[in-house]
Amino acid sequence: MSRIDGRTPQQLRPVTIERGWSKHAEGSVLVSFGDTKVLCNASVTEGVPRWRKGSGEGWVTAEYAMLPRATNTRGDRESVKGRIGGRTHEISRLIGRSLRAVIDYKALGENTIVLDCDVLQADGGTRTAAITGAYVALADAITWAQHTKKLIKPSRKPLTGTVSAVSVGIVDGTPLLDLRYEEDVRADTDMNVVCTGDGRFVEVQGTAEAEPFARDELNALLDLAAAGCTELAELQRKALDTALER
Amino acid sequence: MSRIDGRTPQQLRPVTIERGWSKHAEGSVLVSFGDTKVLCNASVTEGVPRWRKGSGEGWVTAEYAMLPRATNTRGDRESVKGRIGGRTHEISRLIGRSLRAVIDYKALGENTIVLDCDVLQADGGTRTAAITGAYVALADAITWAQHTKKLIKPSRKPLTGTVSAVSVGIVDGTPLLDLRYEEDVRADTDMNVVCTGDGRFVEVQGTAEAEPFARDELNALLDLAAAGCTELAELQRKALDTALER
Amino acid sequence: MSRIDGRTPQQLRPVTIERGWSKHAEGSVLVSFGDTKVLCNASVTEGVPRWRKGSGEGWVTAEYAMLPRATNTRGDRESVKGRIGGRTHEISRLIGRSLRAVIDYKALGENTIVLDCDVLQADGGTRTAAITGAYVALADAITWAQHTKKLIKPSRKPLTGTVSAVSVGIVDGTPLLDLRYEEDVRADTDMNVVCTGDGRFVEVQGTAEAEPFARDELNALLDLAAAGCTELAELQRKALDTALER
Amino acid sequence: MSRIDGRTPQQLRPVTIERGWSKHAEGSVLVSFGDTKVLCNASVTEGVPRWRKGSGEGWVTAEYAMLPRATNTRGDRESVKGRIGGRTHEISRLIGRSLRAVIDYKALGENTIVLDCDVLQADGGTRTAAITGAYVALADAITWAQHTKKLIKPSRKPLTGTVSAVSVGIVDGTPLLDLRYEEDVRADTDMNVVCTGDGRFVEVQGTAEAEPFARDELNALLDLAAAGCTELAELQRKALDTALER
Amino acid sequence: MSRIDGRTPQQLRPVTIERGWSKHAEGSVLVSFGDTKVLCNASVTEGVPRWRKGSGEGWVTAEYAMLPRATNTRGDRESVKGRIGGRTHEISRLIGRSLRAVIDYKALGENTIVLDCDVLQADGGTRTAAITGAYVALADAITWAQHTKKLIKPSRKPLTGTVSAVSVGIVDGTPLLDLRYEEDVRADTDMNVVCTGDGRFVEVQGTAEAEPFARDELNALLDLAAAGCTELAELQRKALDTALER
Amino acid sequence: MSRIDGRTPQQLRPVTIERGWSKHAEGSVLVSFGDTKVLCNASVTEGVPRWRKGSGEGWVTAEYAMLPRATNTRGDRESVKGRIGGRTHEISRLIGRSLRAVIDYKALGENTIVLDCDVLQADGGTRTAAITGAYVALADAITWAQHTKKLIKPSRKPLTGTVSAVSVGIVDGTPLLDLRYEEDVRADTDMNVVCTGDGRFVEVQGTAEAEPFARDELNALLDLAAAGCTELAELQRKALDTALER
Repeated sequence: MSRIDGRTPQQLRPVTIERGWSKHAEGSVLVSFGDTKVLCNASVTEGVPRWRKGSGEGWVTAEYAMLPRATNTRGDRESVKGRIGGRTHEISRLIGRSLRAVIDYKALGENTIVLDCDVLQADGGTRTAAITGAYVALADAITWAQHTKKLIKPSRKPLTGTVSAVSVGIVDGTPLLDLRYEEDVRADTDMNVVCTGDGRFVEVQGTAEAEPFARDELNALLDLAAAGCTELAELQRKALDTALER
Repeated sequence: MSRIDGRTPQQLRPVTIERGWSKHAEGSVLVSFGDTKVLCNASVTEGVPRWRKGSGEGWVTAEYAMLPRATNTRGDRESVKGRIGGRTHEISRLIGRSLRAVIDYKALGENTIVLDCDVLQADGGTRTAAITGAYVALADAITWAQHTKKLIKPSRKPLTGTVSAVSVGIVDGTPLLDLRYEEDVRADTDMNVVCTGDGRFVEVQGTAEAEPFARDELNALLDLAAAGCTELAELQRKALDTALER
Repeated sequence: MSRIDGRTPQQLRPVTIERGWSKHAEGSVLVSFGDTKVLCNASVTEGVPRWRKGSGEGWVTAEYAMLPRATNTRGDRESVKGRIGGRTHEISRLIGRSLRAVIDYKALGENTIVLDCDVLQADGGTRTAAITGAYVALADAITWAQHTKKLIKPSRKPLTGTVSAVSVGIVDGTPLLDLRYEEDVRADTDMNVVCTGDGRFVEVQGTAEAEPFARDELNALLDLAAAGCTELAELQRKALDTALER
Repeated sequence: MSRIDGRTPQQLRPVTIERGWSKHAEGSVLVSFGDTKVLCNASVTEGVPRWRKGSGEGWVTAEYAMLPRATNTRGDRESVKGRIGGRTHEISRLIGRSLRAVIDYKALGENTIVLDCDVLQADGGTRTAAITGAYVALADAITWAQHTKKLIKPSRKPLTGTVSAVSVGIVDGTPLLDLRYEEDVRADTDMNVVCTGDGRFVEVQGTAEAEPFARDELNALLDLAAAGCTELAELQRKALDTALER
Repeated sequence: MSRIDGRTPQQLRPVTIERGWSKHAEGSVLVSFGDTKVLCNASVTEGVPRWRKGSGEGWVTAEYAMLPRATNTRGDRESVKGRIGGRTHEISRLIGRSLRAVIDYKALGENTIVLDCDVLQADGGTRTAAITGAYVALADAITWAQHTKKLIKPSRKPLTGTVSAVSVGIVDGTPLLDLRYEEDVRADTDMNVVCTGDGRFVEVQGTAEAEPFARDELNALLDLAAAGCTELAELQRKALDTALER
Repeated sequence: MSRIDGRTPQQLRPVTIERGWSKHAEGSVLVSFGDTKVLCNASVTEGVPRWRKGSGEGWVTAEYAMLPRATNTRGDRESVKGRIGGRTHEISRLIGRSLRAVIDYKALGENTIVLDCDVLQADGGTRTAAITGAYVALADAITWAQHTKKLIKPSRKPLTGTVSAVSVGIVDGTPLLDLRYEEDVRADTDMNVVCTGDGRFVEVQGTAEAEPFARDELNALLDLAAAGCTELAELQRKALDTALER
């Protein structure tokens, strides 16, 4: 089977990670997985939410949103509707949990980092692109907090690892890596997998969209996702390898 | 290792499924997994949401909520706060998807079934108890729609299978089935698994609460969950085996 | 005239008051007036709302709600609609005022007790059942605060009396006690009466649903309600007579 | 006992009923009970809410609100807070029910009348002033609908009677009619009574603010209120006696 | 060209400024520009919003609203809709900015004055009438704060000037001052101008409703508005010339 | 005086207009005025809002928003707060009115075009950049509707002109064109001017931030703005001059 864009089942879309996109944010990454483009801005503030004060520990959280016309047909703004939808809530929470999995709260100290992940253009896999880009923005924000603003001692290591994410799914019986929107719509099973750079799992969310899936299908998808995450971790490493001019 | 309530790692809590709990709902089940008690009411209405009209197909959806004092400390009411929280959204969506995985929309015809899952008392595993109980309420509601109200021809089979769910997690290095609240809080990894009665997966949601988890840990959890779901499917079958007086 | 369930006009429905229903709440009562079932949970917290701080006085408040399918047809959730309806507001306020009528704020000290009254199944008289059950939950919560948690000295008497409530109405010209839903719908006049155990009035709310009512009709309804409240006070006393195992 | 403004216990404050206050509304009354001033505007529209369509019957409803500085200290706007408070809900519902008690829906035909009662200045008794003024605005709106706009045949009688309301309360042991704010604050028992012009009751809402009240106290308050309503009905009659220039 | 009410193009409607309208507010003005009537209440409170604490400077803000039936057809209440509309927001902000233009924050000290401008009846120009009336209410509130309550030393001058506002527009090619609603609807260009008493501009908001406007049209409108504001400033001065009994 | 970025007072920042930025929208422009970057997406849908149905006329509207970290410090999301702020409302309305000034509703037919203007990075002048970019996106969307989708006959001219906007202000006594954020903060007077390509005015909004401004200052600002708009109109024309590949 050949995919709509000619990729093999095991192939990621072209991934770009552009650091320093916005001049205001302490970490700012425009990540693209093919036509999916997400702007990930990290904002550092001293202090933590009230329930965490005095703990000596920091906090990392995330907010995900889509521009109204990021998709093929225009969606109503959640600000205008006056409420956040379930999907938005779910993905914001997923991104936050994923990033916190590689954070040492003690090393972060009583500082808060908010990751804003705004989808500028969507073509499937927006939440996994968001996690992958947000990690890089988070790393830049921590570097800023250590070296520019001196909020955290440079000797500390608030990041305990790296984290990236990818979607996988079964389309017409074939397990595929990194689904585009058209593939996602046709998938029987759809899974989002978040891994650390050392190959362990942070989140596994598999959903039978049509038929329930068997254990061996689940295994095939996990294999595919783990390989994809390893590749993304390498791309993150390369992106972070150069110094960021501010 | 012995668990706080003396169970083995592979053992479910005592599960009860009380049908016909409310006199008003077309399907009404009070399900308990130990001290977790969820009232699952199924409401059948003719017609479907606007976006589905004329399709000849039905719709099944769910709403989950907790009473303010279902938990150890009182939570604010979402109605008073004026907005649904992310967790509520997420679980409502999970329950709905899980039930729709065993629905033949065509056989259901243009009818809508809403499952209200209200947690009366919580002790871990409320979402999985809700799915397990909601399936039974759904089955009763469909029987009602076929035999009492004649909305659906008795010859049709709107249910294509059964569905149940259970939580699993790794506590102090040991994979455990059906976590109580105290276990859930201490778990490194927490997973909710939804299976059909024939042993396939509908949803797999695993989260690293502390340390990321390795593939073999994931496998151990999936084994445990699959066995638990099979046991629950049997309990659902038994519960549905007797006629329900209305 | 015989009533739909064979009662005389002066007769209450079978009333049950089940204490200790939930393991979490400091006071927890499942009260039923016939098919009307309300779960009344009392939550005790140290401290008072901001406007009362430093006064040395406590506070008691209540929140009433119905499960979506407590009634014959499903109602939309107020949390999903994003706002509390007028009826919910009105009844919550009524329950709070009724309970505060028998509270000595000074004796309570700077503690707050919230009564959550959630209607699990409705068949008329939900607000009066809620008040009657909430009083018992409140009494249990105060006992807990005095003896288990030592928030209040056992020598103090935060409760200055008992309180119960019942509905009355005129159906086809006959004054009836404790209306079921079908009776309530057909009533020309509908009244909710809250009394203390010594026979005085805390609230009298009478409404002409169809025809305005004359003074002698009002008098007949008040007689009926006062007698009903006396009977309910006796049932509350009996329910509280046994020790509650925690 | 002499009252702060020198009235006898049985005496109303000076009441004025100014018709035709606003040029836009079909009925517009500025009513004052002493320093309490409420603008009551009646708006007539053809058609009825969806749930009433095709019934041949009309509908009457009311909305009550206070300007932020109608009271001694400024209150936050409910529009800015984004939600209607419980008190506002409760009073709006009371006004609507009171007016509907004298409406013949069939004679009204499929027309809707909304009564907006906005308190411009408050000094106790705003809800009873609102009902008393709204009745007059309603009467003018119906006349307009019959004679100016020809929505209703002049031969029909949509009003089956008149309705007025007054507050009563026990202050320092004395039952008083038509409480000012300072009296209301000091009242042990507070009651709002709505009567028809022929002396029957539409609503009786009595609340023990401090001590529960006995049956004879209730009777004394009802006597006082009934006499007050009779007097108000006469003032309404006089106000409506002159032709209204439009 | 003659205007619908016989005015010349340069003529204001009859303007009345009634001080001390409400007994509660520290400044209370009922202003009318013809049939447009706005109640402007000024509320003084000690202290400032959190972001201004410790600055030694005060704050002035405004909230504008319309009664539902201030207009020819009834508008829904923003409190019932649960949100403030864009027009309301815009006008509230305009009034606040206009008044702050003549405030010396230092002289005001850490006190806050809120201006509530509620339109009781609308016939065009409600925002400009509101600004003109609110200035007078503000002046009275400051006098109260200086002389009655001693919040501000009488020697200070919190007001650095006076402010008034008027609408202008081009109707059928003719620039007109102070548009009534019917004129406003037909205007090609509509401008609201806020001036200080010494003839300088605080706000100029011109909008092409139909055709874009040329520079000379803009100039003609500014001339008209400046003259109108001068006249209004004189009326404000006269209104404030007499002592206000409290 | 030299400006912070070396411009003359009469000089625009570097302006870029990138068409076809998003693959989904019918018109998509990323506009930048220096470091201010706004993504303007135009969405075309058949049909019009209810109040316009059957008129044969179309509708154009706009929604403006800022990403949370478009600014130097992070702002809370309006979707999370559950309400649109006054500034957002005001600017959305301004953009919509400005674009409608060059629309022939009849020629547009019963089609609706929504312009989403999302500020990705802010450095002053976001509303004027949004209007300037949105015009180009609107033009592309109309071309699409005429040539790609055939919703509008190619012979019709829904655009009656072009529209662009720029900010001007007085900083330290000097009138400046196209203010950056640091300049805007220091400006005494701030004005936003929207012009058509033929040099007429669509909107003039001048605000005294500190001192009221005199007529000659107003004139100097209008001169500056008119020249700036002419320059922007030329840049829009050039940008639209090339064919857009889809």
